[in-house]
Amino acid sequence: MSDKELTQDEIDQLLAKAKQPAEDALKLHPYYEGKMQTVPKCSVWGFDAFAVWYTPGVAAACRAIAADPAESFRMTNRANTIAVVSDGTRVLGLGDIGPEAGQPVMEGKALLFKYLGGVDAFALSVGEPGRRPSAEEIIKFVKMVQPSVGGINLEDISKPKCYTVLETLRNDPEITIPVWHDDAQGTASVVVGGVIGAAHHVGKELDQLKIAMLGVGAANTRTAYVLESAGVPLKNIVMADSKGIITKDRPDIIEQKDYDTFKYDLAQKTNKEGLSGDFSVAMEGADVMISASKSAPDVVKKEWISKMASDSIVFACANPIPEVWPWVAKAAGARVVGTGRSDFDNQINNSLGFPGIFRGTLDVNATTITDEMCVAAAQALADIAIKQGTTDKYVIPTMDQWELYPYEATKVGMKAIEQGVARTIMEEDELFKMAEEKIKYARDLTKNLMDTDFIKPKI
Amino acid sequence: MSDKELTQDEIDQLLAKAKQPAEDALKLHPYYEGKMQTVPKCSVWGFDAFAVWYTPGVAAACRAIAADPAESFRMTNRANTIAVVSDGTRVLGLGDIGPEAGQPVMEGKALLFKYLGGVDAFALSVGEPGRRPSAEEIIKFVKMVQPSVGGINLEDISKPKCYTVLETLRNDPEITIPVWHDDAQGTASVVVGGVIGAAHHVGKELDQLKIAMLGVGAANTRTAYVLESAGVPLKNIVMADSKGIITKDRPDIIEQKDYDTFKYDLAQKTNKEGLSGDFSVAMEGADVMISASKSAPDVVKKEWISKMASDSIVFACANPIPEVWPWVAKAAGARVVGTGRSDFDNQINNSLGFPGIFRGTLDVNATTITDEMCVAAAQALADIAIKQGTTDKYVIPTMDQWELYPYEATKVGMKAIEQGVARTIMEEDELFKMAEEKIKYARDLTKNLMDTDFIKPKI
Repeated sequence: MSDKELTQDEIDQLLAKAKQPAEDALKLHPYYEGKMQTVPKCSVWGFDAFAVWYTPGVAAACRAIAADPAESFRMTNRANTIAVVSDGTRVLGLGDIGPEAGQPVMEGKALLFKYLGGVDAFALSVGEPGRRPSAEEIIKFVKMVQPSVGGINLEDISKPKCYTVLETLRNDPEITIPVWHDDAQGTASVVVGGVIGAAHHVGKELDQLKIAMLGVGAANTRTAYVLESAGVPLKNIVMADSKGIITKDRPDIIEQKDYDTFKYDLAQKTNKEGLSGDFSVAMEGADVMISASKSAPDVVKKEWISKMASDSIVFACANPIPEVWPWVAKAAGARVVGTGRSDFDNQINNSLGFPGIFRGTLDVNATTITDEMCVAAAQALADIAIKQGTTDKYVIPTMDQWELYPYEATKVGMKAIEQGVARTIMEEDELFKMAEEKIKYARDLTKNLMDTDFIKPKI
Repeated sequence: MSDKELTQDEIDQLLAKAKQPAEDALKLHPYYEGKMQTVPKCSVWGFDAFAVWYTPGVAAACRAIAADPAESFRMTNRANTIAVVSDGTRVLGLGDIGPEAGQPVMEGKALLFKYLGGVDAFALSVGEPGRRPSAEEIIKFVKMVQPSVGGINLEDISKPKCYTVLETLRNDPEITIPVWHDDAQGTASVVVGGVIGAAHHVGKELDQLKIAMLGVGAANTRTAYVLESAGVPLKNIVMADSKGIITKDRPDIIEQKDYDTFKYDLAQKTNKEGLSGDFSVAMEGADVMISASKSAPDVVKKEWISKMASDSIVFACANPIPEVWPWVAKAAGARVVGTGRSDFDNQINNSLGFPGIFRGTLDVNATTITDEMCVAAAQALADIAIKQGTTDKYVIPTMDQWELYPYEATKVGMKAIEQGVARTIMEEDELFKMAEEKIKYARDLTKNLMDTDFIKPKI
């Protein structure tokens, strides 16, 4: 098919499709007055229950924790609670809109955490009026809130602040709960899941893949490292930013070495052939193209895709408009095409990752989430797709295959145990059963509230 | 009756009674794995709901807030969400046990906020490992978390840090949500409610009352000021700390003027007769005794009570052991006796205050909670008791009279509107209906979860 004759039609249709959720969101957010609430999980059998849950009885629970801090994971909801922390400086495609304006996203994240992963989340958008917090201020906030939660999900924080925050917290010996940046590790887990599934589908080996990546932001940076953990040598990857392919000796990268250490590191370790020039050079003969750059059509050109290897894989991840429309990529010769959108095949969607990954992490009370745990999640996603039967249009599961979450959680948890970062050890089947129960609980509970009108029907 | 022959029996019985909640708490906290969870309040009608609640639709809600920050109270759950913030430095009678160990109390508070007031609360116990946060660090934390919540409940923070935190935040023009210290304002509201009810019952006027107060901590300090707002002249109050009656010229108070400014201020304004010496001097001829000091029997002696005015009122508020046992106070001649305990008459219980006060405050989107709003709450409590018919044993309502909460919320909200601190203006009946609905929702929801086994029966 010709992409020319389809483009305008499709674009009109896609724009119309994108409008409906926005209209519904504007109507339904005020209708429900937000998306999440806090609700008892303990029995309130009568007013004397408060003598147990509050003073005087509660003092016994406090004393137990004072005697052994690990008890805080048994005596409170800490073991199942995380904080979603954002300063609203890089929200979706909206940029730096600040913490108040970012909060609907964080509350949405809390909804997904609960509904898909059975994880309780406090949506905490942070910042003082009229100025954005520094990396140090966000780090301090997270350290302060640590005693109340079992994990931290950093979200929508601008670069390079997000790196500083994440790396400082992950390397701080005083932080004993997992700290995770979903825009980096979460995206990486799902993209790598797609790569594993697609490579399997087209019959290529991971260690043989040549990968071209457009964008060297938080997402693609972590994706490169997780690809490496999954078995793709970094030297087989070529990355490009808005100035072209990143190379060992690019002066701007050397100059910014302390500001963006990861880009510098990747510039040293990727691109074994020492390619330079614009991204089209990287695309020549590549097996996989992964873009996480500018949300606009034709950022990745059809001519470039035509020069990729046979059975090529194209993941255009920018939202809401991918860097290349799928039908354009297909027409140019790509075999497997994925985007971030739910209305196309092969949706590369963070929501496939964080709920299951945190479920498994919390269930084994892990102290961190390693890149290897991200690979375990990626492999779990690929497993599900392969088991179902991959096609060009299906190399990664969809969000409504809810059985993927307990499976993913189990693989992540078992990897944590294997790596020695878990504080609770258990058997795989036991872990699976626990994850499945908690996720099923969250979904059944939501359904119950809808059936009984505690959640009113939408207008 | 002789107090001698009853004391040992009663004490044995009381100790046994106090043990049961502690035993149950140790068993039931791990059984339920904490007390609160997060749950959707919006419909999840299918997987396409996530296109509205999360990307791409959610961006429209974000944009609306970016254009008008006040929209954050409509587009998220902020209008009904508060943070319970504590550093765990003064938890119940347990002292400085730290944030992890204090968290069961904060989660219990979140439970009471929801069940009694329909208010969603994040329990946030804060602090870094091995050290307690300074006043400045807590202030900073609260300022950082402000964009996510509609109010702040400070809890169990040691003195004088709690004063610095509260006053700094309340006077900071950048804080536009109410900040409240429950151990001060909450206790004050309920104690003053008891005083109003009791004074009415014994037929004394507030402006004629002579009041003796033992303890000049956060609770009694704020109680003195709220009493003043309610119509009791400060000069008619005599306060004492562990060193005796506070006076204008006590050197230690002058010396600590910058450290404890409230004590200094009260030392100047109370005690018009310039009494000095131990607390027994303050008790002579007093109409009301309020103690919030050491939790031990006989801190307030029966001989002192005998010297009070006729129809005297004794509120011994220390927990779990009041400063004087009720039967001792009664035998010594007190007419109305109240304590903090649920197993005696006239329970002076914070839970009568904060859920209704925050309900009303949030419903009118008030920017602060004034002392006058505390008086409105106190008067509401007295109204309920008076309407029911006061007796010596009943001058303040009990927690299970749940109709008190919407009524209290309404009085608090109307006072906020009257004082010009409310951002949402409405009629009294409308406000009452709103408060009643939200509180009923929380209670019915909890019952539903228990009936359907989403909250399992207690063991």
